[in-house]
Parts: sequence; structure tokens; C-alpha cells
Amino acid sequence: MKFDILTLFPAMFSGPFDESIIRRAKDKQLIDISLHNIRNFATDKHQTADDAPYGGGAGMVMKVEPLAGCIESVKSQHPSSKIIITSPRGRRLTHAVASELASLPGMIIICGRYEGIDERIRELYVEDDISLGDFVLSGGEIAAMTIVDAVTRLLPGVLGSGESAETDSFCDGLLEYPHYTRPTEFKGLKVPDVLISGNHENIRKWRRRESLRTTRILRPDLLDGIELTREDRKFLAELDLV
Amino acid sequence: MKFDILTLFPAMFSGPFDESIIRRAKDKQLIDISLHNIRNFATDKHQTADDAPYGGGAGMVMKVEPLAGCIESVKSQHPSSKIIITSPRGRRLTHAVASELASLPGMIIICGRYEGIDERIRELYVEDDISLGDFVLSGGEIAAMTIVDAVTRLLPGVLGSGESAETDSFCDGLLEYPHYTRPTEFKGLKVPDVLISGNHENIRKWRRRESLRTTRILRPDLLDGIELTREDRKFLAELDLV
Repeated sequence: MKFDILTLFPAMFSGPFDESIIRRAKDKQLIDISLHNIRNFATDKHQTADDAPYGGGAGMVMKVEPLAGCIESVKSQHPSSKIIITSPRGRRLTHAVASELASLPGMIIICGRYEGIDERIRELYVEDDISLGDFVLSGGEIAAMTIVDAVTRLLPGVLGSGESAETDSFCDGLLEYPHYTRPTEFKGLKVPDVLISGNHENIRKWRRRESLRTTRILRPDLLDGIELTREDRKFLAELDLV
Repeated sequence: MKFDILTLFPAMFSGPFDESIIRRAKDKQLIDISLHNIRNFATDKHQTADDAPYGGGAGMVMKVEPLAGCIESVKSQHPSSKIIITSPRGRRLTHAVASELASLPGMIIICGRYEGIDERIRELYVEDDISLGDFVLSGGEIAAMTIVDAVTRLLPGVLGSGESAETDSFCDGLLEYPHYTRPTEFKGLKVPDVLISGNHENIRKWRRRESLRTTRILRPDLLDGIELTREDRKFLAELDLV
């Protein structure tokens, strides 16, 4: 997977991409991340990347020429990569969207800054618009990190055998069950007996039920989207009676 | 605003917090960010911070004692800070949630890793749980960066006079109108005439209408939550007739 990131602040990415799972995926050559400084494509001697908005008002707008130059340069090297912007207008990032992006050969992520990019960049180049949610960030950089991380961990071979994306939240459409590790008691709180019982069938049932219970309480909307077994439905019916 | 971040990967934060608006907010002493390495609170000589889950299965669980020690140490220094975790179970981060967090004296953000934290940490300490959305990250670090950024830009004095949080998406409940800057024409695409007209009332109207149009097309659900003027309703009715 090739990630090209177009940004005015490439130094922001030094920490997040140099640790843990992303670092390991880079080391294994399962992903390749290139950072491109949009400012290098500015055409004037001051390397201007932003300018005042037509129509007036607060803030600056990212100029069209430097960004267009940067996009065209990167796209010519990776013509099959999808050009993505992050903005509150976009479709919401979900596990399904991350899985879809993980099947791409590569992506070119444009990090907006200031009040936003010149609208013509969208019209001319942008193929997908992803939103992290109904809030505003100072720029697209942290959103780009989020996409890179969410997508990378879904790529084959990235997670080791001791890890698993399959038990994460959303992989079966439910929120996760609670986790416990040693000691069995901490400040009076004990690990549920069933988890120490060694009875694998009871452990499986308990975890499924805790997933269902948590999802039912916190995100009942998720239950509509998944296929429930007869056992699941029986348990949910029991919850209703309590 | 005091941000305390509890993490196993403090180096991840070096880039994101050293640029742009967060850096400036730190320089102006409007925010203060401290990173705390959870591993420093491990009690054994190998500084173990994770262990196998009770009940078996893939992945590791963050141990309760090092995290509890780290939380108690930080909380004793900042007793009025709210203890927050990020997880898919949490309430969704929105502009309203970011505004609410911006009114706190401080927050202690726990970054989960591996399969998750020992459930007893939640029961004993956690006061708020924030979700970025229905997807999974490799850890809470990028989610913590997101919260710090979304909250910091809402603090008084952080954005300069040439910037504005008030014209961002969601501040009036709508998506933003399109932005343009020089040149007036690029690859055949022109800036809308009204923005160059100098007629401020027409510019205001055009921007409001473009916000309404974009929101109507992409996020009609947002229109339910806001107070529309008579002019707004008239324009939306016209859109229906097209």
C-alpha cells in the first residue's frame, strides 16, 4: 500500500509514523509512506501557499497552483492511487470505509489547512472525501494519520499472530467485551470467575453476551446491522426482561 | 488548559504537538501538555505493561497496576482534571463535545493499546469515554491528538484575529461554503462572479446559500438541529423545486 501525504507540515508526521504497528508495517515493506511538502510547489520566491479569500472574511485559503502542482507530480508517479481529502463534508470514516480503502493500491491524502483549500482543487482532482466526524481540526494532518493507522492495521500481514483485528470492535459488528489480565483481584475488584474457569465454551458465551450487552446499552443502532444467532436473540430477550 | 496524556508511546507526540496552532497555544501558555510514560509505573524489573488476557484469545491486555499507578500520580497533581479514555464504546466526539471539554480546567487522557485496558481501570477511574467513530485504531494516541487539537482551537486567545473558529463547519450548525483565492481563473474554472463583485450583502447571501445547499445535499440531518431564518427556509424551498 502506497500512502502519499500532501501537507504544509511534514514534520508533524515524524512521531506518529515511527512507532508501533505503522513502523513495523513500514519495516516489513507492507506500506510505504511519502510526505510531500506542498510549499515546495509554490511558484513565487516567498513560497506562498495561502492567500486571502475572494469575497473577504477571516482566515486564509490554500492556493490552487502549489497544491495542483504537488498533486499532479505525485499522481504522475502513482496513477492508480486515489486522491483523498479529509473534511467535515466527507463520508464518515467507518470500519467498512477503512476496509474499502485497504483494498486500494494506494492513496494520495491532501491535508487541508487554514480556512480550507480553493474549491477548484476539489472539482479538478479530488476523488474521495473522508470525515472523522462533526468537529473541526486545525488541519488534515491528524485526520490523515487516523486514516493511515485504521487502514494499515487491516492490511494482510501487518498484525502479528499474537494480535488480531478479528476480535476488535466492529469486526463482528459489535462493541468489544471487557478484557482482564492478572492479578485476579485489584482494589477489591475481581476478574469474573468464568474467565478463570478454563471452560472455553462458557468463556465464549460470556464474551459474546458481554459484547451484546455493551452494544445494546451504548450503541443499540449497531444491532440492526448484524446477523444475530438464535442464542444472541434469546440473550437479548432475557436482557429485556430484567 | 492542562492536558496530561498517559501513553506507552510518548515519542508519537513529538511531531503533532510541535507545529502550527498547538505549538503556538503552548508558546502563549494557553495550554500545557505533559506526556506520561505508563511503563515508568510498571513494578517489575522488565517494566511489563501488558499481559495475556484471562479466558485466553489473541492479543495482550494493558495491566491494571502500572496504569493505576500512573493515573493516581497524575490525578494527585491535577485533582480537578477529568479522566478520559478513547474507545469505540465512547460518546462520539462532536463540535458540542469539544466545546464542553474546552470548558474543563484540564483532562487526563489515557491512551489504550493492544486489545485494550483491564476493565477495572474503567470501573475505578475513568470519568468520560470518547469515540472518534466506528473504526479501530492501533492505540489511543492519534485519538488523543485529535481531542487536543479540536479542543485547543476552541480556547479563548488560541486562534489569531486573522483566523476564526466562527466560520468553521458546525459553528453555525452547517457545513462550510466553498472558498476561493487568486487567480480568478485556473484550468478554465472561474471564481464565482459574486465573490469578486464587492457587494458584501450579496456575498453574505451567496455564502449562506452555499452552506445550506452543501448541507442539504451531504448532511440533511444537520438541518434539523439548527434555527433557520425565513430567508433560509425560502431558499431551501426553492432548492426543492429544482
